[in-house]
Amino acid sequence: MSEQLKQLINKHQTTLSAAIEAIRTRHNWSPFQDSPSSKFHGEEKPKAGKAAFVARCHRPFDLKLPGINDWVGGEVSPFTQEPLGITYPACDPQAIIAAAKAAAPQWAKTTAETRLAVCVEMTEQLYARNFEMAHAIMHVAGQSYTQAFSGSGPNALDRGLEALAYAAEAMRHVPASATYSRNFAGEQVLLTKTYNLIPRGIGLVICCASFPTWNAYPSMFASLATGNPVIIKPHPNAILPMAIAVEICREVLEKFGFDANLITLAVDTPSKPIAMTYIENPAVQIIDFTGSPRFGSYLESTVKDKLLFTETAGVNSVVVASVDNLQESMRAIARGTSLFSAQMCTSPQVVYVPKDGIATGTGTVSFEEVAQTLVNEIEAIASNAKMAAAIMGAIQGQVSLNVVASAHEQAQAKGLRILREASPYQHPDFPNARTLSPLVIATTPEHQEMYAQECFGPVLFIVATEDADAAAYEATELARTKGTISCYMYATDDAYVDRWLDAYAQAGANLTLNLTGPMWINFAAAYSDYHVTGLNPAGNACLADLAFVSARFRIVQHRRPTTGAAS
Amino acid sequence: MSEQLKQLINKHQTTLSAAIEAIRTRHNWSPFQDSPSSKFHGEEKPKAGKAAFVARCHRPFDLKLPGINDWVGGEVSPFTQEPLGITYPACDPQAIIAAAKAAAPQWAKTTAETRLAVCVEMTEQLYARNFEMAHAIMHVAGQSYTQAFSGSGPNALDRGLEALAYAAEAMRHVPASATYSRNFAGEQVLLTKTYNLIPRGIGLVICCASFPTWNAYPSMFASLATGNPVIIKPHPNAILPMAIAVEICREVLEKFGFDANLITLAVDTPSKPIAMTYIENPAVQIIDFTGSPRFGSYLESTVKDKLLFTETAGVNSVVVASVDNLQESMRAIARGTSLFSAQMCTSPQVVYVPKDGIATGTGTVSFEEVAQTLVNEIEAIASNAKMAAAIMGAIQGQVSLNVVASAHEQAQAKGLRILREASPYQHPDFPNARTLSPLVIATTPEHQEMYAQECFGPVLFIVATEDADAAAYEATELARTKGTISCYMYATDDAYVDRWLDAYAQAGANLTLNLTGPMWINFAAAYSDYHVTGLNPAGNACLADLAFVSARFRIVQHRRPTTGAAS
Repeated sequence: MSEQLKQLINKHQTTLSAAIEAIRTRHNWSPFQDSPSSKFHGEEKPKAGKAAFVARCHRPFDLKLPGINDWVGGEVSPFTQEPLGITYPACDPQAIIAAAKAAAPQWAKTTAETRLAVCVEMTEQLYARNFEMAHAIMHVAGQSYTQAFSGSGPNALDRGLEALAYAAEAMRHVPASATYSRNFAGEQVLLTKTYNLIPRGIGLVICCASFPTWNAYPSMFASLATGNPVIIKPHPNAILPMAIAVEICREVLEKFGFDANLITLAVDTPSKPIAMTYIENPAVQIIDFTGSPRFGSYLESTVKDKLLFTETAGVNSVVVASVDNLQESMRAIARGTSLFSAQMCTSPQVVYVPKDGIATGTGTVSFEEVAQTLVNEIEAIASNAKMAAAIMGAIQGQVSLNVVASAHEQAQAKGLRILREASPYQHPDFPNARTLSPLVIATTPEHQEMYAQECFGPVLFIVATEDADAAAYEATELARTKGTISCYMYATDDAYVDRWLDAYAQAGANLTLNLTGPMWINFAAAYSDYHVTGLNPAGNACLADLAFVSARFRIVQHRRPTTGAAS
Repeated sequence: MSEQLKQLINKHQTTLSAAIEAIRTRHNWSPFQDSPSSKFHGEEKPKAGKAAFVARCHRPFDLKLPGINDWVGGEVSPFTQEPLGITYPACDPQAIIAAAKAAAPQWAKTTAETRLAVCVEMTEQLYARNFEMAHAIMHVAGQSYTQAFSGSGPNALDRGLEALAYAAEAMRHVPASATYSRNFAGEQVLLTKTYNLIPRGIGLVICCASFPTWNAYPSMFASLATGNPVIIKPHPNAILPMAIAVEICREVLEKFGFDANLITLAVDTPSKPIAMTYIENPAVQIIDFTGSPRFGSYLESTVKDKLLFTETAGVNSVVVASVDNLQESMRAIARGTSLFSAQMCTSPQVVYVPKDGIATGTGTVSFEEVAQTLVNEIEAIASNAKMAAAIMGAIQGQVSLNVVASAHEQAQAKGLRILREASPYQHPDFPNARTLSPLVIATTPEHQEMYAQECFGPVLFIVATEDADAAAYEATELARTKGTISCYMYATDDAYVDRWLDAYAQAGANLTLNLTGPMWINFAAAYSDYHVTGLNPAGNACLADLAFVSARFRIVQHRRPTTGAAS
């Protein structure tokens, strides 16, 4: 091993050990700073990052990939509604796959510790370029600047580092060699056994448009660390962040003497989708998918004998059974549903409230009062342009506006009450931003066909149920049948909570209870929160656990009589 | 937790810790004694075991299962060629599945440590009844008495205990709870998080006829320990061992207050196979299959979105490139191919020898001499009735006689040389035993259609290759394309070995080098040898590694503000 690689392993040993400690204790930890404040980063880095983003626009993104056939790209900024004007190399899949296969043997033979160190170095280099990444995320996904910086930067990198920690645990579980000594028929047999980790094959990572890095990093690093080349297939509406990530990772690979084609970018266009060409290629053995439930379940029902990890979407619910402080609880929900205009896989969409009202610390309040308090709290965000901009950001795609319009139309047709109309808010910095504050509809379980599917956009349904138990029953059935990534409950009665905890667990629903205050209820912390259970239709895999990494490599052994030892 | 369960956990703690230590260091270890000698077991146990087996025959096997529709059973002893006369309950699959589902919640809520202890107790109780099991294995599978005792007893139980060690590692990796403390917007948030292990669903274990317990125990224990009910689907020709195993496990479950229906037996007949009914049931979420490549690949190409672990079969080869001592090497191969009449998944079937002969410690010998020495060593076993009986045992099914007859016919049609005719040997204890010593055919790679598929029976092909590199090339290509579970090589030239090690690894072929002496070359030791790589068509899973257990359960969490603590 070269001195350079030894130093790299040494450099990242502490970080990796701390990450492993964190996944085992699941406490709060990160090697990164997730605030964009110049207090932490100085005055220059933020400016340089923005300038780097601006310099990307209106020109080809010069990623030196194999088999370039064309230059494509049609990204439009949700903040300016203007095209970014960036084109990306569209490559022949056969050339991309051939390049990945050619790069594979050297990487496969590289020790696990080296690969882990190279991957940790990638996370550091990605972090170093995070101001550029933040602007890229803003202008393809629509996340606010602060969320783009944190949620798609350090928080996403933490998920990647978490996957590296799991990969380290799984690979280190296999010793490099062993001595085996046993008496057979009165004679001592002494064998030396060698165990090799063999990567599974090319890993394909299919990314979503709204949160590309957060889901891509864990998959990408899990596959890379276990020795597999990776092909990133970005969403055609959100190529730039992944192009930057791929560029940075390729630079790291080259710097340390590895083939840059261990990570490539497979760009396509909405009219000519390319994912299936990769999925069907026998060299592609691992598929990580984040995106629509439709394509996700298509993959789940067709992909056989390859590793498939999916995170699609579900319908996240809140049960409001009883509260200490109504306003604080409703503020927590309002913030949760407003964050990134409900375009998160953890955004709540349905709020169940008993029709006869709930107990609070200051007496019983009616369903109406609960609903109105929630609406007021949303209004407090939406009516404050600066706060709305920081929290809601912009709407990634026209499709989300359509979803909200369609929900509005259906609600009217059914005679349901609109508690709050969706409307654009005026973004202080981007006058042309595509924005929309939440639509709020009051309904009942008999109209569940309206809300019992993911509505990807700012719409919230407040559902009146018979009582608190009916609310929890509806919520857990919704989770079980339609899938969920994150459920929420407000209840001060411990007996009630205990009665329902198991139903949530059986539905594979991660549950946040009684959370109010400054932490976003839908914040999922790497190293501490398991994300997606794999037990309901919202996805078949968890970010991250041992199962997320342990089948990405295989073990092959050889054994022979020990020589040069006393027999 | 009851005092009884606490004691049980305590009782098995040392064994489980030692098993975990063994899978990490991969040294030789077992809590069991794998010799049937009365030196270890006394005079009474062997007799009582035989008597217990005899008492099983000619009567219904009274396993109190739900939904019994019929009593079926057509097992015939390979040693007497007489029916065992045992009938087993054939149950309505809906009733079996309903019973498993009914039993599941209590087991799921039982702590992982309790489930592990209950499973270790099962291994001990199975070991206590191993003389009965040995006779059962003999008279359905055809294994010799000593092999039935060791290979299908302690060696199989070790594989089961190994799976329990992996299950313990994977489950213990998830803490029961955590405290999360982080500053958000200047305010310290303190959360208590609880992580629950949720079993995946019913595990179906489909067993083979020749080695039922060795493959079933790891799957069965991996699923049970992680909280899943298990349904055992035995091969209709080899029901008794699994019926005994299920009976013993049900007794243990009941003794410790659990529902016996956590493990049930799904008996069928060759004319009315029942596996697909279970496989297609949505409650069945884990499928472990050992058996024919045909059904195995059918499952691999049809089962989607369920966990599927397969071990089918491949074509195991030996490369003879150079040896120190020709006779010792050929004896090792002869023993390997004679053991259980080549009805093992690790039995060598093809021996590649350079056509111009090989170097030995005493000079070059011709292809002919290599082949003849191998034939002589087989002959030495076959011609000694007592040794043949101990090593070869009997032929499980008529199908293996047909396989050998067909190979003979093809070889004659192609004008290939028969180096040794297959013939029955006279078993000293069972005059009617279905026996057959190996057929040996000399051939070349141009006739590979004859040997490039599993011939499940005593037939060995000695293939003349251009040279030693061609031999290794043929062997690794065979492994890669047709699958292999165990490959063998004899070569004294280290440079040659080093040149080919990687090709074996890439083909997913576990390799045993230069092994001679008292250890069977095809002996795979639990805790030390990884069995099956999952990288070639011989199977998609490894017995055992973290990937074998880690997806059999899922993790669901809930989190809430910590109360009663300083904030």
